Amino acid sequence: MIKYSNGQTYSPKDIKKKETKSVSSLKRHLSSANRGMDLEGDINASNEYYKEHDLCLITKRPTPINVVKVDYSKGAIITNAYFEKQSTTDYNGVYKGRYIDFEAKQTKSKTSFPLANISKHQIEHLKHVLEHGGIAFFIIEFASKNEVFLLDAKYVIHFYENGERKSIPYEKFTEVAHKIKRGFAPRLDYLPIIEEIYIKS
Amino acid sequence: MIKYSNGQTYSPKDIKKKETKSVSSLKRHLSSANRGMDLEGDINASNEYYKEHDLCLITKRPTPINVVKVDYSKGAIITNAYFEKQSTTDYNGVYKGRYIDFEAKQTKSKTSFPLANISKHQIEHLKHVLEHGGIAFFIIEFASKNEVFLLDAKYVIHFYENGERKSIPYEKFTEVAHKIKRGFAPRLDYLPIIEEIYIKS
Repeated sequence: MIKYSNGQTYSPKDIKKKETKSVSSLKRHLSSANRGMDLEGDINASNEYYKEHDLCLITKRPTPINVVKVDYSKGAIITNAYFEKQSTTDYNGVYKGRYIDFEAKQTKSKTSFPLANISKHQIEHLKHVLEHGGIAFFIIEFASKNEVFLLDAKYVIHFYENGERKSIPYEKFTEVAHKIKRGFAPRLDYLPIIEEIYIKS
Repeated sequence: MIKYSNGQTYSPKDIKKKETKSVSSLKRHLSSANRGMDLEGDINASNEYYKEHDLCLITKRPTPINVVKVDYSKGAIITNAYFEKQSTTDYNGVYKGRYIDFEAKQTKSKTSFPLANISKHQIEHLKHVLEHGGIAFFIIEFASKNEVFLLDAKYVIHFYENGERKSIPYEKFTEVAHKIKRGFAPRLDYLPIIEEIYIKS
């Protein structure tokens, strides 16, 4: 019997079932035309894997929501609220005592990553992270190529602030970013890259 | 002119106005009977101060909300949602490259801090933080005494898991916790304690 962090236990039979289901969903996932849309799911599953295997602890920040009205007559149902713009990044956590902070984005473009969907607040946040000795990067997926890269935040900040073009060319990724290996578990194994470029050196 | 992180600029005159307002609100705050309720506000203001002065970067995690229904006809208004239980902690961030993680709580009790409002998930989360070399603690206010302490997570975990009583006696705080100095700016100066007990040693 294996005990999972959600408190459930699984017998080997259950695990087989679970794996069979996962393999087929993985296949479905890999063949899916809009696989790029599932980047967040892949990262969340990888973080869960890392946590279960005591490798690191990375959590997703909840989406900030501004609550306007709550109906307490039905037990605190929110009846009026709106999404706020994320002023930080999606993920942060700890690996070997070090602070980790990153944002995940995907693009359908084959030639470049457009900077339009990164906010000024996020760039400011990542600059602060670097200033305080944190590890800051982006995980960027070129969905049409089925390639996912880890790119240090300093390059994104540089392009954001000095770039004449409002995008980072794909060639830049092949030059300075690190390709993340896709697999079964973890689905996106980005931790060895952190070890290699931030911890070892 | 001073430029604030929110993008606004203030002239010296504005700052004077701002400070006058802040002093009076501070006085109101200090004389307030339910000052304990404002612990979160004090921590947020202190974090803002630390960020402005380039001392560290600590952010508050948004409250997790499960969105059930969104009305797109009015521009993405959430019309049905509910609060989820926080499975991690309220705050995390980076200081001198190190990962910081903490939860803030207040009690009206004069004799002990009840563990009832700390969830098992939060204890599990903090155990993971410690396991990966992060700095983990609680900021706990005894509102009736106007005293705020920083208490290392290991003590809370110990009491949570082994304590015969479901609370931590006030005497334990005077013995192993560190009293946080209240002031004008930052309102709760907890960073020197982190420097002293986690970084220096």
